[in-house]
Amino acid sequence: MCQIATSKSAPPYQPTWASLDSRPIPSWYDEAKLGIFIHWGVFSVPSFSSEWFWYDWKGNPTPAIVEFMKQNYKPDFTYADFANQFSAEFFQQASQWADIFNSSGAKYIVFVSKHHEGYTNWPSKYSFSWNSVDVGPNIDIVGQLMNATRQRTNLKFGLYHSMFEWFHPLYLADKQSGFKTQNFVNQKTLPELYEIVNTYKPEVVWSDGDWEANDTYWKSKEYLAWLYNDSPVKDTVVVNDRWGKGVQCKHGGVYTCGDRFNPGVLQKHKWVNAMTIDKYSWGFRRNAKLEDYLTIEELLQTFVTTVSCGGNMLMNVGPPSHGHITPIYEERLRQMGTWLKVNGEGIYASKPWTYQNDTITAGVWYTMKKSKSGGTADVYAFVFDWPGSGTLSLGLPKVSPATVVTLLGFPGNLNYHTQSAQGLDIEIPAIPVNKMPCQWMWCFKITAVKN
Amino acid sequence: MCQIATSKSAPPYQPTWASLDSRPIPSWYDEAKLGIFIHWGVFSVPSFSSEWFWYDWKGNPTPAIVEFMKQNYKPDFTYADFANQFSAEFFQQASQWADIFNSSGAKYIVFVSKHHEGYTNWPSKYSFSWNSVDVGPNIDIVGQLMNATRQRTNLKFGLYHSMFEWFHPLYLADKQSGFKTQNFVNQKTLPELYEIVNTYKPEVVWSDGDWEANDTYWKSKEYLAWLYNDSPVKDTVVVNDRWGKGVQCKHGGVYTCGDRFNPGVLQKHKWVNAMTIDKYSWGFRRNAKLEDYLTIEELLQTFVTTVSCGGNMLMNVGPPSHGHITPIYEERLRQMGTWLKVNGEGIYASKPWTYQNDTITAGVWYTMKKSKSGGTADVYAFVFDWPGSGTLSLGLPKVSPATVVTLLGFPGNLNYHTQSAQGLDIEIPAIPVNKMPCQWMWCFKITAVKN
Amino acid sequence: MCQIATSKSAPPYQPTWASLDSRPIPSWYDEAKLGIFIHWGVFSVPSFSSEWFWYDWKGNPTPAIVEFMKQNYKPDFTYADFANQFSAEFFQQASQWADIFNSSGAKYIVFVSKHHEGYTNWPSKYSFSWNSVDVGPNIDIVGQLMNATRQRTNLKFGLYHSMFEWFHPLYLADKQSGFKTQNFVNQKTLPELYEIVNTYKPEVVWSDGDWEANDTYWKSKEYLAWLYNDSPVKDTVVVNDRWGKGVQCKHGGVYTCGDRFNPGVLQKHKWVNAMTIDKYSWGFRRNAKLEDYLTIEELLQTFVTTVSCGGNMLMNVGPPSHGHITPIYEERLRQMGTWLKVNGEGIYASKPWTYQNDTITAGVWYTMKKSKSGGTADVYAFVFDWPGSGTLSLGLPKVSPATVVTLLGFPGNLNYHTQSAQGLDIEIPAIPVNKMPCQWMWCFKITAVKN
Amino acid sequence: MCQIATSKSAPPYQPTWASLDSRPIPSWYDEAKLGIFIHWGVFSVPSFSSEWFWYDWKGNPTPAIVEFMKQNYKPDFTYADFANQFSAEFFQQASQWADIFNSSGAKYIVFVSKHHEGYTNWPSKYSFSWNSVDVGPNIDIVGQLMNATRQRTNLKFGLYHSMFEWFHPLYLADKQSGFKTQNFVNQKTLPELYEIVNTYKPEVVWSDGDWEANDTYWKSKEYLAWLYNDSPVKDTVVVNDRWGKGVQCKHGGVYTCGDRFNPGVLQKHKWVNAMTIDKYSWGFRRNAKLEDYLTIEELLQTFVTTVSCGGNMLMNVGPPSHGHITPIYEERLRQMGTWLKVNGEGIYASKPWTYQNDTITAGVWYTMKKSKSGGTADVYAFVFDWPGSGTLSLGLPKVSPATVVTLLGFPGNLNYHTQSAQGLDIEIPAIPVNKMPCQWMWCFKITAVKN
Repeated sequence: MCQIATSKSAPPYQPTWASLDSRPIPSWYDEAKLGIFIHWGVFSVPSFSSEWFWYDWKGNPTPAIVEFMKQNYKPDFTYADFANQFSAEFFQQASQWADIFNSSGAKYIVFVSKHHEGYTNWPSKYSFSWNSVDVGPNIDIVGQLMNATRQRTNLKFGLYHSMFEWFHPLYLADKQSGFKTQNFVNQKTLPELYEIVNTYKPEVVWSDGDWEANDTYWKSKEYLAWLYNDSPVKDTVVVNDRWGKGVQCKHGGVYTCGDRFNPGVLQKHKWVNAMTIDKYSWGFRRNAKLEDYLTIEELLQTFVTTVSCGGNMLMNVGPPSHGHITPIYEERLRQMGTWLKVNGEGIYASKPWTYQNDTITAGVWYTMKKSKSGGTADVYAFVFDWPGSGTLSLGLPKVSPATVVTLLGFPGNLNYHTQSAQGLDIEIPAIPVNKMPCQWMWCFKITAVKN
Repeated sequence: MCQIATSKSAPPYQPTWASLDSRPIPSWYDEAKLGIFIHWGVFSVPSFSSEWFWYDWKGNPTPAIVEFMKQNYKPDFTYADFANQFSAEFFQQASQWADIFNSSGAKYIVFVSKHHEGYTNWPSKYSFSWNSVDVGPNIDIVGQLMNATRQRTNLKFGLYHSMFEWFHPLYLADKQSGFKTQNFVNQKTLPELYEIVNTYKPEVVWSDGDWEANDTYWKSKEYLAWLYNDSPVKDTVVVNDRWGKGVQCKHGGVYTCGDRFNPGVLQKHKWVNAMTIDKYSWGFRRNAKLEDYLTIEELLQTFVTTVSCGGNMLMNVGPPSHGHITPIYEERLRQMGTWLKVNGEGIYASKPWTYQNDTITAGVWYTMKKSKSGGTADVYAFVFDWPGSGTLSLGLPKVSPATVVTLLGFPGNLNYHTQSAQGLDIEIPAIPVNKMPCQWMWCFKITAVKN
Repeated sequence: MCQIATSKSAPPYQPTWASLDSRPIPSWYDEAKLGIFIHWGVFSVPSFSSEWFWYDWKGNPTPAIVEFMKQNYKPDFTYADFANQFSAEFFQQASQWADIFNSSGAKYIVFVSKHHEGYTNWPSKYSFSWNSVDVGPNIDIVGQLMNATRQRTNLKFGLYHSMFEWFHPLYLADKQSGFKTQNFVNQKTLPELYEIVNTYKPEVVWSDGDWEANDTYWKSKEYLAWLYNDSPVKDTVVVNDRWGKGVQCKHGGVYTCGDRFNPGVLQKHKWVNAMTIDKYSWGFRRNAKLEDYLTIEELLQTFVTTVSCGGNMLMNVGPPSHGHITPIYEERLRQMGTWLKVNGEGIYASKPWTYQNDTITAGVWYTMKKSKSGGTADVYAFVFDWPGSGTLSLGLPKVSPATVVTLLGFPGNLNYHTQSAQGLDIEIPAIPVNKMPCQWMWCFKITAVKN
Repeated sequence: MCQIATSKSAPPYQPTWASLDSRPIPSWYDEAKLGIFIHWGVFSVPSFSSEWFWYDWKGNPTPAIVEFMKQNYKPDFTYADFANQFSAEFFQQASQWADIFNSSGAKYIVFVSKHHEGYTNWPSKYSFSWNSVDVGPNIDIVGQLMNATRQRTNLKFGLYHSMFEWFHPLYLADKQSGFKTQNFVNQKTLPELYEIVNTYKPEVVWSDGDWEANDTYWKSKEYLAWLYNDSPVKDTVVVNDRWGKGVQCKHGGVYTCGDRFNPGVLQKHKWVNAMTIDKYSWGFRRNAKLEDYLTIEELLQTFVTTVSCGGNMLMNVGPPSHGHITPIYEERLRQMGTWLKVNGEGIYASKPWTYQNDTITAGVWYTMKKSKSGGTADVYAFVFDWPGSGTLSLGLPKVSPATVVTLLGFPGNLNYHTQSAQGLDIEIPAIPVNKMPCQWMWCFKITAVKN
């Protein structure tokens, strides 16, 4: 019982935020910039309204959902009655998913292992009869997706996990007690969190559903200390900041600060913009319209502004209950991949520059990398709109004698002029449409920019 | 009859078998003689083979069930996929059930609140998504049946509860540990057992599924101490003997000693014969044949021998998933009720006699009650076969001068003769079939029999 | 083209009632006395209310059915949506059916090949997508039942067929035209009637659903002429009288004169009492109560009065959609069979006697057979209630010196007395219940009764 | 042009091809150029492989479908068993469909009223129980789509109808007879064809499924004579050429000459290229990949070559069984509409030019309209690839002094040069990508071209 001091045995992290927050975020994460988020579950069966279907039907009834159920189901139909229609017949060991995700240019995925409905997409010991092996698909979805990701791609594999469950009676009882009892945490949340890490070794643990109770209730700090000190992914794992009421945007790993967080200014802490291609839902909606999906232009604008301000973008896909990702999602993902093939240089492993967006020309956002020659930076200026006037005027970069300006994907250097110590005017050649390196969001590289 | 003052604060029962076994079984139970057992659950959806369908399909595959599934369901169909077809549309707050049970002459019912499949027929806090409100009927079956029983009948209301669950991962993990861990007991079995008693106040708690682990694992003694000392049914509740490996037939309340236990000789401890009208299953079978159901003659023979040897009979009914008890079951129950209207005198509140079955005439079994005049007994001789010879020769009763012989339900006294101090020959009149008090199993009452 | 007179080629029957009515009913039919009617179809899926479910829901809405649908199905559910739940998984080539029917003592069956819903239980060429091979069971039910009947039993095989269909648009259009158009008859009714006879060679063609249009519309006379002259069953087939408005009880083969026809007096023409064991429905009802089924006593009273007055009884069974006949039906059928084993002598091939029911003792009905010695009759007196008084007084038979009285199934002759030329008093011995030949409805045989 | 008085009573068209072929195709059709084809039916429920699912499963089994059924359905599942899952819950009176079709620039739609499966999307009198009111959606789909089209759009409304049905027993019997019997035509095909025209008054009657039997069997000529002489759409209706074996590409209205017909050279007779956006199927496929859908570039190339050679393009959309058109289809349709807003001038009401594609520059196709000043033509040259070289050399147009060259959607005239009497070199300005009138397939207009 006596543990005499050993330098090695001292676990580096204590279950305090001060200690936990001192852990650096593993570098692969900041370099990755783009991840794919995937929401799949029983909510994918009605695939109506959103993944909050159950809550919006029974927890806080919204007329559209109540009416949808009334029109299309028998009166006593329950939410769990949907589960056996979660067929997944085209999931096919996630081969299509892996291939599409790979093509997108993303560097990691985060899969919803369990959403607020409580249904686990793996055969959890703690969710008997309410998991993807016991009812519905009859497969270990998390396991198959992990295998496909690791075998067919170079992407890192991450898992989302909801701490609370809308209707779990143990949670409701703990809540009723003012969170003085912790039966739900002890019997459900924590065992699951250990189970998924030990079983699937995810390199992202994305927590959610934490907001009603504080980190003491959830025992988050203790869990993170284990995750950082002793878990099989202690060296590589990245977590987010949803570990209890008041924790978000203050403690933990990467800050999420709310869904679709996109502050538009540089953040002091590594953050992520978790957002959706379908503007209105994380889960698949059978009746979504084209206009509900972000265009590739909108996606790229969100992406570039996010990266420019130091964030990663976690872009969400909602597959249907049959398991085959729909073409509109595939199109957006492949478009991202096509664009990143040309412009990835200014994205992957880039850093925020001194400035984020330009002062003269609107719709110009910057990233940077250190120049090969020290002391200066290579600055990447992403422009939303093609500078049709023939000149792109930038107000912020201070060129040096060594400065060269190019358009990523286009051969040759571009001429530029300066009118003062700061700023430059780049001459935009008349490039025929068929010679353009890409159709949307162009990136001008300005080397050897002075600090 | 003398209750000397007991300090109120000392709970009478300690969590030891010595103490628990000292509790007398509440008298209502022995007087009742006949109870109705009801098995209803997800197994009632396939309603094929038996209530062990799941186990016999997946746990220890039997060809008939494997083939049944292959022929009638898609390959990936799971057991939990059946649950949303548990429709219960004709259950109608158990009104039909209560009326039929009432007509049967039974004095109590024992309803399966949860079988080994783990599905709870009440909205348990400890069986999220795997209970009758969350998936399938969308009703609190236990609650509705309790209300109907108490409002429409004079029957007492009891609940069956399975301690183990075939496929619950926490149970399997505990088992894997050699029952050193007790997560399943702590998180599932015990909370449920407290929940059903506190919520529904059953007067019978019929435990089952105990046999793989001992009472220490199950914490049975502690539970029973609470049940006897502090529970809302502490004064009236009757339990059985299935509280852990090795406990059955040795400790607890009423002894069950195995299904369909019918020893044929007097037992020292109060016991019960839990048996089924469908010879092959406790759960409903859609494809049961007429010959699979016990005839009323067989039922009465089982009943009479059981009561004669000191047992109660708990007669099982398996309703279909739609909730309307089928006519063949109704017929058997009403036949029992008709018979008991005539012959109940020799059954209800009777005691085993000195002897159980006769030595001269086969198929004659006895019960007794104390005679109004002290020192002798009124003995009831139940005969399986009508004594067509004109004489019923009994070898055991010692008649006294006051002895009168009658046939229950038939007016007038019967003549009899004795050839020795023990035994008598009863003259059987030629009763036309339409004057017979009942069609099966007749009861001759012999008053004032000497000990 | 010239057909010179050949005696053989002259078809015996013309398409006129005068000619058709002249055909004698094949003798097997009158001798058979008891047949089994079977109603099975899509209505067996809801199995609620009756086989008229569709019409009572949509054609002439009754509140109970409208409410049933509202409570248990989605708003847009259609009747045809039920069809794919017609599973028949326990039909198993009708082996159980054949065995039970065989045990009942019946001599023929009449199976509903198509009821008013229009769904054909055989793969009709004229009912594409609305037959038992195209949707639901995926089997030729009529064919399998025919095979089982012919291979496993000595029963004759008959088919019921509904001429009209409640909702068939061609029928509704013909009806709209005042039955001037005959598209439905030409394209549906007649082709089907030819198809079932040519394919399955039924020995009974039981027509129904004729009442809205006359025989000219239905082309019934032409069909019957074919059936009698040229069909593969021309020598053995028996038909009924439902061949058009106004035809019933006047023309055709056996008279039905309405469902459950039981006139209580001798009829001049061979007739049949088509009745149901479930008092309220021909199709299976999942929520039928025990009291809804006729008791064996009621069945036998109906049967004996029917036979006594010259009728056959066609006793209906409604199997569930899964195809396994329920035990209560099996019980009634086997009880009939048990009874007929003892009493069949007075039933099969019997004839109505001069009198049908007795004038002195109520509940006594007669049949007769010619005595072996000419000029007299053996009269069978069926008594509903056991003559418990010791004497059965009959007012009608005129005994002869050769007259012997027996109780069927009981050894020995019974004493009797006469007080006048007509009538006799039979001495009823005191038979113990266990010596009685049967439990219900006894048959006294009085030989050599004078005319 | 002079129509001298014709006696009204003489119907203009005789049931001969000579007469029928003499009817001019109503002018609206040639002017329209683009139509939308829609395939919806029971095949949209499995939505796997193609709308030939049933045939490829049962008629000529293909392993992929056989395996799909084996993996995902019970062994006895039938095709008609799918029908009650045809839910159409998002069809919503076709409002989304109408809006999307309207946005596409198409001028008419052709909806599959009935495909080879025989299921009618309207409540046909001739398809009892196998139509969209009787089973599945419970709505008159054709009627609702007709109303939406006529109320919400300016598109003309047309109907596809399959003459034969793969598995209809009457058809199979007629076929068996060598098409000597015509029961199927008389009872099914023709009544339906009259019914849809009389009920819905479609301006296109697109026949299909004719190829196994000749026009005499189908009575096509008689039907067309009625359609042209007496039907409610006699003045406006356009038909195709699928009216019997050997008729296609020879007689009838518009020639289809096979699916996806795109001859690449000018045709003498008005024709149509019926093609699919999903390359592999007309019906919806749940597991279609992005690459299975034609890109907008491919669609436009197909469209332009089709129009250039005198054809219309009928572009197929396959909605899912729930009735909401998926975003990828919506995207393609809206892209077409966007393009036609700019380039419609060279498409709608255009005529094929003397030449179809250019001799010097590949990927250039022509249409023309008469110049306002007589004797010359305005020629539209559609180019697949942007002429990035700065010059577009065309080998065929003979410019006149009045000739002006423009790029549709771009302001100002373009300079051009000629080197001989025929042909011209157009100077292509350096248009920045954001000033381009469209992203794909540009149209150069060359006015006053000499013949």
